Amino acid sequence: MEIIRSVDGIKEKIKQIKKNNKSIGFVPTMGFLHEGHLSLISEARAHNEIVVVSVFVNPTQFGPTEDFENYPRNEEKDAELCAKEGCDYMFIPEPSDMYREGYNTYTEVFGLTEGLCGATRPSHFRGVCTVVLKLFNIVKPDRAYFGQKDAQQFAVIKKMVFDINLSVEVIGCPIVREADGLAMSSRNAYLSECERQEALVLSSSLSRAKALIEAGEREAFTIKEEMIKIINGSKSSNIDYVEFVDNRSLKPITRVEGEVLIAMAVRIGKTRLIDNMVVNL
Amino acid sequence: MEIIRSVDGIKEKIKQIKKNNKSIGFVPTMGFLHEGHLSLISEARAHNEIVVVSVFVNPTQFGPTEDFENYPRNEEKDAELCAKEGCDYMFIPEPSDMYREGYNTYTEVFGLTEGLCGATRPSHFRGVCTVVLKLFNIVKPDRAYFGQKDAQQFAVIKKMVFDINLSVEVIGCPIVREADGLAMSSRNAYLSECERQEALVLSSSLSRAKALIEAGEREAFTIKEEMIKIINGSKSSNIDYVEFVDNRSLKPITRVEGEVLIAMAVRIGKTRLIDNMVVNL
Repeated sequence: MEIIRSVDGIKEKIKQIKKNNKSIGFVPTMGFLHEGHLSLISEARAHNEIVVVSVFVNPTQFGPTEDFENYPRNEEKDAELCAKEGCDYMFIPEPSDMYREGYNTYTEVFGLTEGLCGATRPSHFRGVCTVVLKLFNIVKPDRAYFGQKDAQQFAVIKKMVFDINLSVEVIGCPIVREADGLAMSSRNAYLSECERQEALVLSSSLSRAKALIEAGEREAFTIKEEMIKIINGSKSSNIDYVEFVDNRSLKPITRVEGEVLIAMAVRIGKTRLIDNMVVNL
Repeated sequence: MEIIRSVDGIKEKIKQIKKNNKSIGFVPTMGFLHEGHLSLISEARAHNEIVVVSVFVNPTQFGPTEDFENYPRNEEKDAELCAKEGCDYMFIPEPSDMYREGYNTYTEVFGLTEGLCGATRPSHFRGVCTVVLKLFNIVKPDRAYFGQKDAQQFAVIKKMVFDINLSVEVIGCPIVREADGLAMSSRNAYLSECERQEALVLSSSLSRAKALIEAGEREAFTIKEEMIKIINGSKSSNIDYVEFVDNRSLKPITRVEGEVLIAMAVRIGKTRLIDNMVVNL
């Protein structure tokens, strides 16, 4: 595995790969890799000749009061995991190389970005689209892999790619969970031992929703009430949102029919966690 | 020459061309081709193995009160001229194919788009960037050719390409003028015989500016006053702007030093015309 740190460096490498008509699988990450990321890399490895993993904590997708500075980083460990998973090239650029002096171009998907996480993180998806488009232009992947945990991000990127005629195939991979149900996230590192336990209310509330739906309940409101009760059962929890939306349009729905995304963002102490589940009826 | 009308059709063609590692020169146009366009096609022909010309009157770059519906079109003549100039593929998509149902993704370059034409055409450059990015993603050109008559557009597209790491080389070509000095434009077709004559005030005012600068004048204000006098000498003229800006930042300057863009938009009757000149001191 080779680590490349400059935009020009990786562009040169990609040029050679393209000349040889080799397929490229790409996994864009913010590093501090966990098994969720590794499942993406493994999927990329299985279906492409060349695998590129980027590690870039992207400043433009963090709000001014968010955790950009404190976002967990561990490059050495990340490199070790990437190598083990069969990654060919790790791309670890500097913010000053990705956003050169006077940078001023932004790409935005409207319609999918106003609700859910977009409601409390107003410029987040603009930053995500901007950096993902840049990374796609740099890495020129045939396939790119994203985790379904960031359900809204996945929907937004798929829409961007479709709208602006990019050739990359955007592939979503299932949420990877700890044995007790907590969705894997780099931000889990922020949790104290006690908070780690309380964070289980997110996945528990989804399990409860699943059970209710399996028992025949279809009213989103009723299920949501039950979920909120579970989440509020934790002392340190603070709900940002619990929403039932159409999995394509991300518009709120009242009855559980078709492909429904049940998504939430909950603060456990100071740590904002997200989780979700897609049901298809 | 082959005419291709669907996005999927041209994408398939481009895929084949790329597989054979052939270079692509691209000239995006809104059709109703004149010698200005032909100079771009000729330049593309000289430096690339494959030449693609797109003809697309892009709805997203027209304001609600602008001339989208009436914009002059003559596909048959365009095809004839393209063939004669050595174009390999003409791409003539439908708006409904370029902007499919629910289209909602926009790319914007800030900083360069608020002044000059952007001041009175607030969403114009957002539309230009969006469609040019889409066309670049579809045609995947090695080189793309733009006319220097749209000086701000050229600066904005160059900036977009640089910022978002596109691999295309953006090449600007000189303004082509009628024998009497009028800059070639598809919109000249709107002019009555009388207006056609009056439209000469644009190029005349630039000639006057050139003469003053050659005579040693450096105060933008003084030169601008002279230019405005000439333009206002025409009864049917109505100045949108006459500006002296730095040719890179497009920020107003007061003294003619370095690379200066002298740009204007003037209505002759109902027809909005633009013209410009770059001086390098």
